[in-house]
Amino acid sequence: MSVIDLNSDVGESFGNWSFGDDAAILASVSSANVACGFHAGDPVGIRATVRAAVRTGTTVGAHPGYRDLAGFGRRFIDMDPGELRDDVIYQIGALQALARAEGTTVRYVKPHGALYNTIVHHEVQAQAVVDAVRAVDSALPMLVLPGSVVERRAAEAGLRTVAEAFADRAYRPDGTLVPRSQQGAVLHDMDQILEHVFRLVDGAVRAVDGTVLPVNAGSICVHGDSPGAVAMAENIHRELTAQGVTVQSFA
Amino acid sequence: MSVIDLNSDVGESFGNWSFGDDAAILASVSSANVACGFHAGDPVGIRATVRAAVRTGTTVGAHPGYRDLAGFGRRFIDMDPGELRDDVIYQIGALQALARAEGTTVRYVKPHGALYNTIVHHEVQAQAVVDAVRAVDSALPMLVLPGSVVERRAAEAGLRTVAEAFADRAYRPDGTLVPRSQQGAVLHDMDQILEHVFRLVDGAVRAVDGTVLPVNAGSICVHGDSPGAVAMAENIHRELTAQGVTVQSFA
Amino acid sequence: MSVIDLNSDVGESFGNWSFGDDAAILASVSSANVACGFHAGDPVGIRATVRAAVRTGTTVGAHPGYRDLAGFGRRFIDMDPGELRDDVIYQIGALQALARAEGTTVRYVKPHGALYNTIVHHEVQAQAVVDAVRAVDSALPMLVLPGSVVERRAAEAGLRTVAEAFADRAYRPDGTLVPRSQQGAVLHDMDQILEHVFRLVDGAVRAVDGTVLPVNAGSICVHGDSPGAVAMAENIHRELTAQGVTVQSFA
Amino acid sequence: MSVIDLNSDVGESFGNWSFGDDAAILASVSSANVACGFHAGDPVGIRATVRAAVRTGTTVGAHPGYRDLAGFGRRFIDMDPGELRDDVIYQIGALQALARAEGTTVRYVKPHGALYNTIVHHEVQAQAVVDAVRAVDSALPMLVLPGSVVERRAAEAGLRTVAEAFADRAYRPDGTLVPRSQQGAVLHDMDQILEHVFRLVDGAVRAVDGTVLPVNAGSICVHGDSPGAVAMAENIHRELTAQGVTVQSFA
Repeated sequence: MSVIDLNSDVGESFGNWSFGDDAAILASVSSANVACGFHAGDPVGIRATVRAAVRTGTTVGAHPGYRDLAGFGRRFIDMDPGELRDDVIYQIGALQALARAEGTTVRYVKPHGALYNTIVHHEVQAQAVVDAVRAVDSALPMLVLPGSVVERRAAEAGLRTVAEAFADRAYRPDGTLVPRSQQGAVLHDMDQILEHVFRLVDGAVRAVDGTVLPVNAGSICVHGDSPGAVAMAENIHRELTAQGVTVQSFA
Repeated sequence: MSVIDLNSDVGESFGNWSFGDDAAILASVSSANVACGFHAGDPVGIRATVRAAVRTGTTVGAHPGYRDLAGFGRRFIDMDPGELRDDVIYQIGALQALARAEGTTVRYVKPHGALYNTIVHHEVQAQAVVDAVRAVDSALPMLVLPGSVVERRAAEAGLRTVAEAFADRAYRPDGTLVPRSQQGAVLHDMDQILEHVFRLVDGAVRAVDGTVLPVNAGSICVHGDSPGAVAMAENIHRELTAQGVTVQSFA
Repeated sequence: MSVIDLNSDVGESFGNWSFGDDAAILASVSSANVACGFHAGDPVGIRATVRAAVRTGTTVGAHPGYRDLAGFGRRFIDMDPGELRDDVIYQIGALQALARAEGTTVRYVKPHGALYNTIVHHEVQAQAVVDAVRAVDSALPMLVLPGSVVERRAAEAGLRTVAEAFADRAYRPDGTLVPRSQQGAVLHDMDQILEHVFRLVDGAVRAVDGTVLPVNAGSICVHGDSPGAVAMAENIHRELTAQGVTVQSFA
Repeated sequence: MSVIDLNSDVGESFGNWSFGDDAAILASVSSANVACGFHAGDPVGIRATVRAAVRTGTTVGAHPGYRDLAGFGRRFIDMDPGELRDDVIYQIGALQALARAEGTTVRYVKPHGALYNTIVHHEVQAQAVVDAVRAVDSALPMLVLPGSVVERRAAEAGLRTVAEAFADRAYRPDGTLVPRSQQGAVLHDMDQILEHVFRLVDGAVRAVDGTVLPVNAGSICVHGDSPGAVAMAENIHRELTAQGVTVQSFA
């Protein structure tokens, strides 16, 4: 009777360059974080991804990032908050129109890459993103890292937040992620990942020191930008379903 | 008791670069063709223009163009129609979100520059733009050159079209514009421009050979990208109002 | 005792997006058309490709294109010739500096995509490209389609031109390529391709109607943007070498 | 018998957007920091600026910045040093080719905006810029803030550095600039500016507390992006010349 959401980044091709296997990943996840053109995604490709999401019944979310195609949105940019706010509004609006053209709507917002990481701790940029979402539609939930500044700011602004966990990341005893710079930060063993995912569904996580912590994740992030990542997502979806867990969007 | 719409391009600054005097021109026109980011306009600047339009009571329209900042959208690009269609949807959607953030809505579409000129005669690109507008909102009227391919295509697709005339352009006896490459194509004398504008309000135009032709213009385009252009727009607005003509958007 | 050049496009990744298998293709060709950043290629990626070319002893050429990342330089842009000329100078200069940083130099120029196709027939843009090459270094040869406008313009300007043929394209009896829109335009059978390549080395081509024409190709273009293309390039290189043909750059 | 260099940023227009009055400022300065296309400057505009510099006998320097047209290079980007290094090489090389097309050469490098400010203190990015200049031409001097990290790194790498002072900025007793966020950071009174400039020529600066410090500035930066700034530059040039100081590039 359990229910969990799986989310993944999609729509990150650009023009002649393709990235990830959207068709495969959309078959495994319930929520699709669709690139909005600033870090990746050209309009015709974004729309094709939305169309594919409609076919698989995957919920469409906006995945806005810094205006940085060359850096794929993975580089912090020290932006004026007003500019960031309006860049995010612009991106969500663009995706909304493409979604409408495919008969669907944008149902949530999850910032991308360096912007996601920045608003974990950066008060001003976090507020700018919150202001953007509120300006577009205050009923749009935000997918956030639990304990982050943006989670608090969004809640203070009256936005619904959904905490996400990561299928292949190790956790510290305080509930935060082991930084990628440290050994063991990323899980590679499929059995270990599945054990971790099922524990997340049950509302807990086992930290690297063995401590089991309560965690209330409304969504689990999986990746789709490598053959291994797609296979991982497929495995997780299959095992969850086989064990009677319903994979279903929070939105 | 006459009513006419004046329209002008605005929002065409980009980042640190400003272009035109939006505040001045918005005080004189009833319809603002707001750049959408592909040929000009960054989100925070677009939004500032929309906010200014709200203050002056000017109707906001979308002014999508080719993705070509370096060329200001003034160079024909031989695009795939599906890509063009989705580029236009993306731009309109982005502007819609920024407009909503300022408490207003996008009320019409007028393509920009080389795209405007191309769809006067290019069947495939004209249809792509029409498909884009219809996908976004089939109730959005399009501002078009009378006699153009896009006017016909839009009408066939069930879109409302509004024909526009130009305040400072000379006309040929067949109702088309004297090409800019020919002498006398652009009117510079203010008295002559006003005479031309008042005749347009009355539903007619005097061609370069003296012939007076009927013309049914729902809007008159004025420019705002030079001090002279702004003064011209102000003069036209003042004289129309002084003569009892109401300057009011068609949308 | 025969000698022929094989050329291929490389360096066409961009930021996080990879394109083609440069390492594999560079092992098979003698001339590398390296993207210069306007249609593809970011500086760090361009430089990595140049470094790989140095390792394989492949000659580096500039592969400038239209400023159009979203279109991969495959869309005609109706540019002002002065702007095009300076865009090409800019791109070649940028590549020259990255080449110097790797201890090599740019030895020829081959325009990319839509620009390549346009200057086959477009007098003004062809002249603009010729002017650009001459401004950078009048000793740089240009790789051109035989019979093209750019071949004539370059020769008139005193530039050396090298005619190229295509390993996998069918020819018409007048020596031009069968357009891609027609059936049989692209050769897929490896034996047929090898027969075609060896005939090119011998200075001839067999047209689709069986006619054998003389052709003086200084370079043969092979592709590297798909696994099949890379295998084709490897096969051609191996068979040429096995038959005693030296694969060596014209530059 | 004194000699001083005046430098200013130029070439910062982009496509249809103009910025600053290059013609006026080039008549007043001896060194022109020419934008290279990443923060501002399109090739045809850059070349026009170089041509104007040749006419006025102004020395051409490269003014590379972050890849950020929307932010005019004024926003810090947390880049990988390898990417930054190659971005800078690319920009200098592009300018070198445009300079050669106008019969001149790039004679020094001064980073722009946020990059300039960052490498005052950021060891890794400072080294990346130094590595770039050295890779292009180890004989190119760098224009730097005295006391900055980049000044030290450049010197360690064997590059010549030239310290610059600012015509309209107030100094603290430790020789650093009063931050722009503080009152009195920017001088507006022309007499005060001239007194400051003449003292700089004599190798000294009077700090805000009245202390007079020795300073060895090889160049004085003036601005040209507002009518007031152009007039200031003209005044400085006129007064220096009138008092027998030769305005001449360090390069």
